[in-house]
Order: sequence, then C-alpha cells, then structure tokens
Amino acid sequence: MSIVEERWTELADIKDELAARDWFMGTSGNLAIKVNDEPLQFLVTASGKDKKKRTAEDFLLVDADGQPIDETQLKPSAETLLHCAVYGQTDASCSLHVHTVANNVISELYGDAGKIGFKGQELIKAFGLWEEDDVLTIPVIPNPAHIPTLAEEFKQHVNADFGAVLIRNHGITVWGRSGFEAAKLLEASEFLFQYQLTLHQYKR
Amino acid sequence: MSIVEERWTELADIKDELAARDWFMGTSGNLAIKVNDEPLQFLVTASGKDKKKRTAEDFLLVDADGQPIDETQLKPSAETLLHCAVYGQTDASCSLHVHTVANNVISELYGDAGKIGFKGQELIKAFGLWEEDDVLTIPVIPNPAHIPTLAEEFKQHVNADFGAVLIRNHGITVWGRSGFEAAKLLEASEFLFQYQLTLHQYKR
Amino acid sequence: MSIVEERWTELADIKDELAARDWFMGTSGNLAIKVNDEPLQFLVTASGKDKKKRTAEDFLLVDADGQPIDETQLKPSAETLLHCAVYGQTDASCSLHVHTVANNVISELYGDAGKIGFKGQELIKAFGLWEEDDVLTIPVIPNPAHIPTLAEEFKQHVNADFGAVLIRNHGITVWGRSGFEAAKLLEASEFLFQYQLTLHQYKR
Amino acid sequence: MSIVEERWTELADIKDELAARDWFMGTSGNLAIKVNDEPLQFLVTASGKDKKKRTAEDFLLVDADGQPIDETQLKPSAETLLHCAVYGQTDASCSLHVHTVANNVISELYGDAGKIGFKGQELIKAFGLWEEDDVLTIPVIPNPAHIPTLAEEFKQHVNADFGAVLIRNHGITVWGRSGFEAAKLLEASEFLFQYQLTLHQYKR
Repeated sequence: MSIVEERWTELADIKDELAARDWFMGTSGNLAIKVNDEPLQFLVTASGKDKKKRTAEDFLLVDADGQPIDETQLKPSAETLLHCAVYGQTDASCSLHVHTVANNVISELYGDAGKIGFKGQELIKAFGLWEEDDVLTIPVIPNPAHIPTLAEEFKQHVNADFGAVLIRNHGITVWGRSGFEAAKLLEASEFLFQYQLTLHQYKR
Repeated sequence: MSIVEERWTELADIKDELAARDWFMGTSGNLAIKVNDEPLQFLVTASGKDKKKRTAEDFLLVDADGQPIDETQLKPSAETLLHCAVYGQTDASCSLHVHTVANNVISELYGDAGKIGFKGQELIKAFGLWEEDDVLTIPVIPNPAHIPTLAEEFKQHVNADFGAVLIRNHGITVWGRSGFEAAKLLEASEFLFQYQLTLHQYKR
Repeated sequence: MSIVEERWTELADIKDELAARDWFMGTSGNLAIKVNDEPLQFLVTASGKDKKKRTAEDFLLVDADGQPIDETQLKPSAETLLHCAVYGQTDASCSLHVHTVANNVISELYGDAGKIGFKGQELIKAFGLWEEDDVLTIPVIPNPAHIPTLAEEFKQHVNADFGAVLIRNHGITVWGRSGFEAAKLLEASEFLFQYQLTLHQYKR
Repeated sequence: MSIVEERWTELADIKDELAARDWFMGTSGNLAIKVNDEPLQFLVTASGKDKKKRTAEDFLLVDADGQPIDETQLKPSAETLLHCAVYGQTDASCSLHVHTVANNVISELYGDAGKIGFKGQELIKAFGLWEEDDVLTIPVIPNPAHIPTLAEEFKQHVNADFGAVLIRNHGITVWGRSGFEAAKLLEASEFLFQYQLTLHQYKR
C-alpha cells in the first residue's frame, strides 16, 4: 500500500466513525490528512459528497494552496483553506471539521466572549492538561461568509501541533499529530460541550 | 436494471438510512420518488408497513392522482396527495415526509406564527443560501384531519424544485431534485430544529 | 417451523429491535407473545437474562397462570402476571413492557393525575384515533412492590385488544393484536412522551 | 480456551457494548476483570488505546499492585489502582469505569452533598433493592489529580462485592460479582442519572 493509500484508508475509517454518529448532517463537515511534508500534500474531502457512503471519490490530493495535484473532476471542499492553515503553520498531520448541535449552540452562547474555558473536568486530559488547576480554553471565532477572511481569522489560533477552534454557528475544527489524536480531541470537545450545556440547565 | 428498479433501490436506501435514525416511529412517515415524467409516475410508500424492514412490498407505483398503476393489493400511503402536489407543481424527483420529536415540537412552537426563520446558521447552505444575510424560512401549516384539505394548504407552499414545509404536529415534508438533495434538506432541517430547541433553553 | 418456533422468532426479532434502542437498561423489561388460545399458552421472557443477546433461553412457555408448561430451570419474569392479565382479558396476542427515561419521567409527572392525554398529535393515529378532536388517554397506575397487587391495579385498565398503561417509575406496558401492533404502540407512545417532555420545556 | 482467554473475551465483549454507546469519549474509561484469586491477577485496559477497536493489545495482566505480570510494552491504565482496591477488598470479579455526560453532570450537581439517593425507582432493583422503601445511595467523591490519593478516597466506599461510586467530573466506577452484574449496574446507574436530570427540569 502506498503512503497515499494508507492515509486514505486512515481518513476513510475516521470518516466512517464520525458518520456513524451523524456528525455530517446536511453534507456538512470536511476532513484532511497529510500525505507528504515537502512539498506539502494532503488529502481533503471532495465537495458535495454523501459522507455516510465510502467511495473512491471521497477525497482528493491537494497542495499547500489547496489546489488539486492530479487532474480530476473533483472539487476540494470549499473550506480547504482552513486545512491549509493547519499544515502550513504546524506539524499536525490530521484536521477534522464537523457540525454538532452541541458545538454550534456552544459557539453561539460563547461567541461574544470569544472563547469557552473548562476547568476541573477529567476530559481536558485529552488535550494534555493533567494538573488540577489546568484550564482548557477553546477560542470561538466569527463566521464570515468569505472563506479567505475566515481562514485569516482561523490562522491566528493555530499555533500548536494540536488544538481546537470553534467557528460561530459553523462547527468545530480540531487538528492533531495523528488521525487518532485529532479524533480524540473531537470526541473530548463534544463531551465537554454536551456536559456544559446540560449542567447549564441546572446551574446558571 | 430498469428505471423502476433503479429508483426503487434509491428510495429503499434512503428509507434504510432514515429508519436507522428511528425517524419512522409508530409506522409514521412516507416517501416517494419519481420514475417517469409524462405520464407522471412515481413510487410511494405502501400503507401500514414496518419501515425498518426492507421488502418487495415497501413501495408501489402510482400515477399523477396517486392511484396505483398496476393491479396490486397494496394501498398507497394515506398522504400520497402531498407527494402528487410536489411532482405536479415542480421538477422535484424525490419527496420525504418524516416525524421527529424536534420537528413536531418546532411545528407546535411556531405554528401560530406560520413559519420559522433561520439566519446566520452555516447549515442553511444546504438550501442554497450562501450569503451572510440570507434567511431560510420554513412555513408551518395547520394539520386538518381531511387529507385533501391538507394537500390544498400544502400546495400553496410548493413553488420551487426543492423545499420544506412543516405540518403542525405532523412532521416535515421535504422535496428535492434528487433523492440525495431531498435527504440533505431533511438532515439540515432536523439539525436546525434541534439547534433552535437547544439554544432556546438558554436564550429566550 | 412449529407455531411455537414461529412465535419465538417473532418475539426475538422484536426483542432485538428494542434492545438496539437500549430499552432494556439494567436488565429491565419483559416481553410476551401468545402461542395458543385454549388452553392459553404464551411465551414470556425468562428472568435475569441479558436482552441484548439472542439465546435459546430467552423465553419460556407458560400457562394462563404464568406457570412453566415444560420442565425447565428457567424462571418466568417476575412480572408475568401482567401478561397473564392481558391474555386472560382480551384477544391481544403480544404484550411488551419496557423502561425508557421518557416513559418513567412522564409517569412521575402525571402519576398524581393518574393519566396523561394527547390531542392534536398525528401520532395518536397509531392507536386508531383518526378524528380531529380525538384524545388518547394513557392511564398511570401506582407501583406497589407486591406484584399481585400491581397486577390487580393493572387489570382494571385492560379492556380492549390493544392499549397502553404506564406504571409509576416502572415503565410502560403495551399490548396489541399482533407483535407488529404492540411494537407500533410502544414506538408511538415513546414518541409522544418525548414530544411532551420537550414541549414542556418551552410551554408550561 | 485458557481462563485468561475466557476472561479476555468476556471483557472485550463488554468493551464493545459500551463502545457502541460511545461511553469512551476522548479515550476516557478503563475496564478490569479478575483472572485468578491467589495470587490476585486481573486483566486491565492498556493505556491510550482506541476502545472502539478490538485488538490484541487492549488489555494486559497485572498483579495485586497493578504491576504487569508478563514482560510487555503496554502500560496499565493510569487508574489501575482503583481496580486494585476493588479486588483487594471484595470478592468482585469485574470493575468498569466510564464517563457519560449524565454521570459527570450528576457528580457535579451532587458533589458537595457527597452522595445521591434514589427511592421509588424500579431500576434500583438492579442493586438488589426490592422493598418499597429501599433507598439506593451512590457516593460522590472528590477528584484529586494525584491517583493514589484518589484511590485512598475511593477505597473507603468499597465494602461490598458489588457497588458504584461517582468521582466528581470523572465518571463512575462500578463493580460486580460477574461481568454481567457490573454491566447491569452501569446501565441501571446511567438510566437513573438520566431520569434524575430529566425530571429535575420540571420539578425543582
């Protein structure tokens, strides 16, 4: 199996897992995984596909600017620029963008504050925070319709090899040093958002 | 595979997907897909079937008036007239009607207003709304027990090749230019309804 | 296939469907299906089994008093008397008892009133109520620890060939003229309970 | 099949069931099952694995102090000391630790009180409580980052062969005389927590 095939399979497996949770409602969401470092090449979701199905047209290979490397009829996801930012600025190797009801509602509730913080929650250990007073802060950025403007805003929060950013009413983007790590951060974030929303009903 | 078999398989696949989410509780819901244009023929759910199972009696072929084309013991769904309205008035090729807790509650909360609007939500892009100030409006119509009266009310809101209408305490009907598009609109609507209900608990 | 095998398969299929929804949490719940009329014989859940698994010890055949017909090490479910009441008093052929969070919470909220009513909900059609002003009333009975006392209370509400009774903080029991009908009523009830709980958060 | 293989399969089956409910979000959670009494040996989750997959590296055999018995590159879960407490102090044979949104929120809401009680709920029968006035009390302990300190706190509540302890914002640990019993208690607890949270929205 070539490196492209290996990465393809890894990303397709992650896609299947996320699809099983219905985290691609209305064809939303997009995924990427790095295939080569220099020159930068990564696989990214093709635009407009049904992510519940597994096909040979699910992903395509793009370069550092998000342009297709091979001749293809497939179009990269409209939000490929965000994945470019991740691989251009860090050593991450996988980035995932999904919409859930919980992450969208949290992004709206904390959008004006520009961030949400979690402390004393066991699950923040997924982000490497093991001390009793550690705080996980996830930024919430605005959602301009113009993707390059969104990507500029997003870039300012991409300064480590793993992390998470909420886009207001536009889901979450996480990235990690492996597909496994990126998926772990996605799950931990979702758990924390659902926890926060549920707790919030009793303690305001 | 004949065109009828092709469409049958497409609709059965959609039915399986929706059944996996438990969107046919209590044998509610019905589905249709166009098979021929002139004369109009479409497949529609047979009445009273368990939609979690996949059988040769799940659908039957009907004409523009919703009458069975072939001799059959199967009865078309009681709400076939709504599907007739879709194919009679637009170039849609698939229409789906399902009940979810979220779509029924939204229909009750916004029933008096006669509509619900969404703005600034990424998911409205599923309806082709890409501009920052675009608003998605989904009408909510009353639910008379007399189906022809319901169909008359419904018809007034069927004026594009894709769309969605909520019926008060009676689920949603969506239609699209393909089965894929109809399912996409159904998912996007459900996401938006769940989002609205969840947000509503914090911001009233 | 003998009639016992046929009914066994039918009940096991229903059990699998309900288990897939996690409606047997903590080994709660029990199911029954009639096999013979005179003398009355029905299959009922064996006590203490993991209902997520499908085994040859899931059910056993009992008589009108709920006593095992064949020599067996299996014990009928502690609540077999409720199923006896159904088959003794009606022509129902299947009865299902499950706990869900929604049905337990509804039973607590409406327990003092002794009933919950639904009107104007499309889903009440599952109970054969098709007119615009029809009302579905589901009784809520107390939950004495002494099963024969519970069965006496339950019996008073079993006077049609299909129906549903909530037991306070002890789930729902539904019955119908077929396994399909019983499962349909169970689904419709659950939908209505979830609807009511969700709506209740906005309209009190 | 050796006793180790038998127990491995039993624990792997339980893991699959819990994973299907998404009860290991963000790689949280850990499981153990006793293999031998004297000297004490038990299988425990290896650290940092994806619990949605089933592999030959999911568990490893450890002794009464939680130290690996065979030469291995695998590391026992960081929280193995809690499982040591269970097998060192009782005749339990399986112990399960998982995070759910409901158990974490309940642990926060009842953390100051140090316990949560349930009465009049049918599901408490899973804990062997069959009388009408029986009360199920589940302790809620603090969550120090230092695991040996946590284990000391936990030990004080481990004084029967089956039971459950909530750790504040750190999930639940249950144990039982069999894998089946431990899983049953886990399900019953989760049901009761979801019930309590839902009811709490209407009755405060």
